[in-house]
Amino acid sequence: MSGNLLVEGERLDDLQCKGYYIIQNPNEFCFGMDAVLLADFAKARSTDRVMDLCTGTGIVPILMEARGFGGSFTGLEIQEHSADMATRSMLYNGLADKIKITRGDVRRVRESFAASSYEVVTANPPYIKDNHGLENELSALNIARHEILLSLEDVISAAAYLLVPGGHFYMVHKPFRLAEIFEVMKKYKLEPKRMRMVQPYADKEPNMVLIDAALGGKSMIKVEPALVVYNADGSYTEQLLKVYG
Amino acid sequence: MSGNLLVEGERLDDLQCKGYYIIQNPNEFCFGMDAVLLADFAKARSTDRVMDLCTGTGIVPILMEARGFGGSFTGLEIQEHSADMATRSMLYNGLADKIKITRGDVRRVRESFAASSYEVVTANPPYIKDNHGLENELSALNIARHEILLSLEDVISAAAYLLVPGGHFYMVHKPFRLAEIFEVMKKYKLEPKRMRMVQPYADKEPNMVLIDAALGGKSMIKVEPALVVYNADGSYTEQLLKVYG
Repeated sequence: MSGNLLVEGERLDDLQCKGYYIIQNPNEFCFGMDAVLLADFAKARSTDRVMDLCTGTGIVPILMEARGFGGSFTGLEIQEHSADMATRSMLYNGLADKIKITRGDVRRVRESFAASSYEVVTANPPYIKDNHGLENELSALNIARHEILLSLEDVISAAAYLLVPGGHFYMVHKPFRLAEIFEVMKKYKLEPKRMRMVQPYADKEPNMVLIDAALGGKSMIKVEPALVVYNADGSYTEQLLKVYG
Repeated sequence: MSGNLLVEGERLDDLQCKGYYIIQNPNEFCFGMDAVLLADFAKARSTDRVMDLCTGTGIVPILMEARGFGGSFTGLEIQEHSADMATRSMLYNGLADKIKITRGDVRRVRESFAASSYEVVTANPPYIKDNHGLENELSALNIARHEILLSLEDVISAAAYLLVPGGHFYMVHKPFRLAEIFEVMKKYKLEPKRMRMVQPYADKEPNMVLIDAALGGKSMIKVEPALVVYNADGSYTEQLLKVYG
């Protein structure tokens, strides 16, 4: 299939993990450290049905599968080209049976998926709330980064709808929205159970937060030590190298 | 006044800070690092009226005054002996005019204090929710540590009542209650604006969290880098030594 594997402008990137590759277009959205950290933070049993909302090019389910987590995966993506790249990546990796990519809108999961049909939901959603002027500039990059087509509440309410009671929702987001994230999660009975801040350096404020919430859990959260990405000399910390395996 | 400064069993401890001392009884509750970190985390202008709820022996207002924060202070304490030690400490330090100790119940602030009468409220409240069997053992230590006479919601609602619009509430608490803390704060229009986790070691989970909330603020929180207390060799980190000045 290598003849029509890549469309012009696309690139096949080696994930250096179980021999898997991913198709990306460097002019659009390419996955970052947030997706890798989310796939490491999320846990799933070998029989769990896992839904990845805003899957993009499908990086989170590929990495979770590579780590041996999860039974079957659905990756939901609204952008046609991203969903298409993700579908071709799954074929290329021999994962098409295990990771199904569906093009669709997270705001309309109730029309396409049954309630309480996943044990695990993951999401690396758009982070930025301020869409000032972006409504007229619906580039793939803006849609992936800004809450143009999808709000935080849309993502959280979809996760709550999809999860079985006691199921877990794993999300990576920006720390400055933490209070709002907790508030909206609690509104939908998703109880924050575990959290990890990610700091670029030991003395710098975190720029990502990983959250694990359980549907219908009781109020008690385990806060893990902050994950520091770089040593003072700019090299990766041991903590981070452990995540990248 | 040294003749009747100390009651039997009490001790006069040097705070090594502006020449101040504090009276404590080592058989009851003695202040810990949490109070020192709170007094460092809290900010107040030189004209601000500051209320310290659950003041105990008055450590938080003494340390804030020593750092040059705050105009006038009220320390509210329910336990008679603690309030008495605090009052004598203020006299001994020459702070009786600036820091007034009042014996009273945080749950009844509405009877003794006017609404919106403080720019800043601080609290190092009891942390532990499980009072299993403690109702019959009302020791000074148990009252200071467990939510026997005072719940988290009591503390937060009292702070919201006492604060002027835009006023700040600074609290130290346990990380495992973070989601609940945010939820209750938001219920009383106290918006979490700043947060700092305190970790004993770089790779250990935090055992304290410092929170700054503003009455009527908008939803956006600044998460500061985690404060690490000890280096791997057990010595204090530079970050911590900076707090202790």
